[in-house]
Amino acid sequence: MKITVGVDIGGTNTAIGIVKENGEVIIKNSITTATHGNAEKFIKELSDAIKALIAKANVTITGIGVGAPNANYYKGTIEQAANLSFKGIIPFVDILKTHFPDIKHIALTNDANAATIGEMIYGGAKGMKNFVMYTLGTGVGSGIVVNGDLVYGHDGFAGECGHMMLFKGGRSCGCGVPGHLETYASAPGMKRTAFELMAKHNASDSLLANDSFNSLDSKKIYNAAISGDKIALEVFELTGDYLAQAIADTIHHVRPEAVFLFGGPTAAGNLIFNPIKEKLDTYLLPVFKGKIKVLQSELDMGNAAILGASALAFKEMVSQP
Amino acid sequence: MKITVGVDIGGTNTAIGIVKENGEVIIKNSITTATHGNAEKFIKELSDAIKALIAKANVTITGIGVGAPNANYYKGTIEQAANLSFKGIIPFVDILKTHFPDIKHIALTNDANAATIGEMIYGGAKGMKNFVMYTLGTGVGSGIVVNGDLVYGHDGFAGECGHMMLFKGGRSCGCGVPGHLETYASAPGMKRTAFELMAKHNASDSLLANDSFNSLDSKKIYNAAISGDKIALEVFELTGDYLAQAIADTIHHVRPEAVFLFGGPTAAGNLIFNPIKEKLDTYLLPVFKGKIKVLQSELDMGNAAILGASALAFKEMVSQP
Repeated sequence: MKITVGVDIGGTNTAIGIVKENGEVIIKNSITTATHGNAEKFIKELSDAIKALIAKANVTITGIGVGAPNANYYKGTIEQAANLSFKGIIPFVDILKTHFPDIKHIALTNDANAATIGEMIYGGAKGMKNFVMYTLGTGVGSGIVVNGDLVYGHDGFAGECGHMMLFKGGRSCGCGVPGHLETYASAPGMKRTAFELMAKHNASDSLLANDSFNSLDSKKIYNAAISGDKIALEVFELTGDYLAQAIADTIHHVRPEAVFLFGGPTAAGNLIFNPIKEKLDTYLLPVFKGKIKVLQSELDMGNAAILGASALAFKEMVSQP
Repeated sequence: MKITVGVDIGGTNTAIGIVKENGEVIIKNSITTATHGNAEKFIKELSDAIKALIAKANVTITGIGVGAPNANYYKGTIEQAANLSFKGIIPFVDILKTHFPDIKHIALTNDANAATIGEMIYGGAKGMKNFVMYTLGTGVGSGIVVNGDLVYGHDGFAGECGHMMLFKGGRSCGCGVPGHLETYASAPGMKRTAFELMAKHNASDSLLANDSFNSLDSKKIYNAAISGDKIALEVFELTGDYLAQAIADTIHHVRPEAVFLFGGPTAAGNLIFNPIKEKLDTYLLPVFKGKIKVLQSELDMGNAAILGASALAFKEMVSQP
């Protein structure tokens, strides 16, 4: 059985896990993501931590996969990452290879792409050749799989479904273009929907009416919804509708077998999945109606980032043995 | 040099051409598309016409490609085509193969996919691994190429960008879902835009103001625009903006190197391309701004359908030699 390392670089912490081909995480650890801005130094720290973990597990590994923000799969670079201290274009894979000269398969991609490959290797998309994953969190990411391969596009940055236009001239988006899906279907987007709805319905009796804009979050909306709060329930209905509209556009592009949803808001289960499933067909061409599965990710959320990154390494071995 | 046959099945006529690997159409002909509803009989008629053309050209052919509405590439079927007399699911390729038992490469896809492959084999997309084509006409079709292959999706029907949502709750679409791109950016969509604008501006002095809804068409709008008619010029501005919005969504999905536009409305040249190019960046993530080419198809429009279909056969030879 092959064993790989999965690394997930976040703004604060970097998680490292050693993962078996069947998706079992043998051992994991984490280090602080450097704030010193010296990429070479951080990659040395990371390499030492990986080597220590491999030694502790007493295994031989055959690949290292890394998930990171603003990662370019083709070049193995992290480029202009706003949430990391490393500025400019970091040749991450090239530097990492100097610490692991015997490991042939070292690859890097962004978090959403890594999660998508994780779903394909260990999760619900096993055996699927065409599927899509949306990752819902602070933003909305995505990964698109066509003919069994992740779509990287011409320059490695494909799969930005979170920035498709939902409502022209709509909500301000962090990217500067108003109206993108991310501003409606992310966790903060749900909060914005709640505030719109309280304003619309003058909902002083809502369980959400005593929270400030800064104190409300999607978890509180979920708790209010299961207590039967009308505003909170409508937030889920609308979020489901927004996602259905976006998923339909994605289906019209690449006609996946299934669309997976991953991330915090999906923990709400039927509250979010039912409105998506009810609305999806209303946006689709007849030839697609009733044919596309909308599924919850089967990745263990606690290990998903590590699993996704390690899956990237497994995928490399299969694609370029 | 390899030589293939390209067949384009339209509602009224079926065009047949014999095409060299370099895109030269050696000879062409057309037959009436059968209205008798008997697919077996029509495919016999078509096969006879193909054989007669091959004999006349005195060449050996190595493949046959067919473009047809509602065509399923995977199954080689034409399914529930509203504009053809053949009802149900027609195993078109299987029947055609009985007439050409010695030809290994016989394949079928829809018109927009065929045009896209034509652009890849003979046109401006030569050498491109990731590009998209929108075909503008009575409707809006599309073909998406990822990693050098057309995206057919799970069931062969991917690439329906004309049915992505432009404005929720917007114009009625033939498919039953309001607001789709096709209702704004097709030739009839341009007419609808002209009528909206005349209503908005009370434009009794427009060159278009004496045409009925049934008599106006995109050619008249073009002629008015080059005469400086304000309504007609605004139609092109808006159509370009609509297309830019849609193209941005497609870019966020698959990040092509270039987007090609094909079909009647593109003959307007800068009138349609300039507003697209001006608006595109306003809809894109910073990482994509200024990086994606929007190009006019280089396929000869008179032969495009035949070229596209023949290119499908060439592509089969390369993919499955």
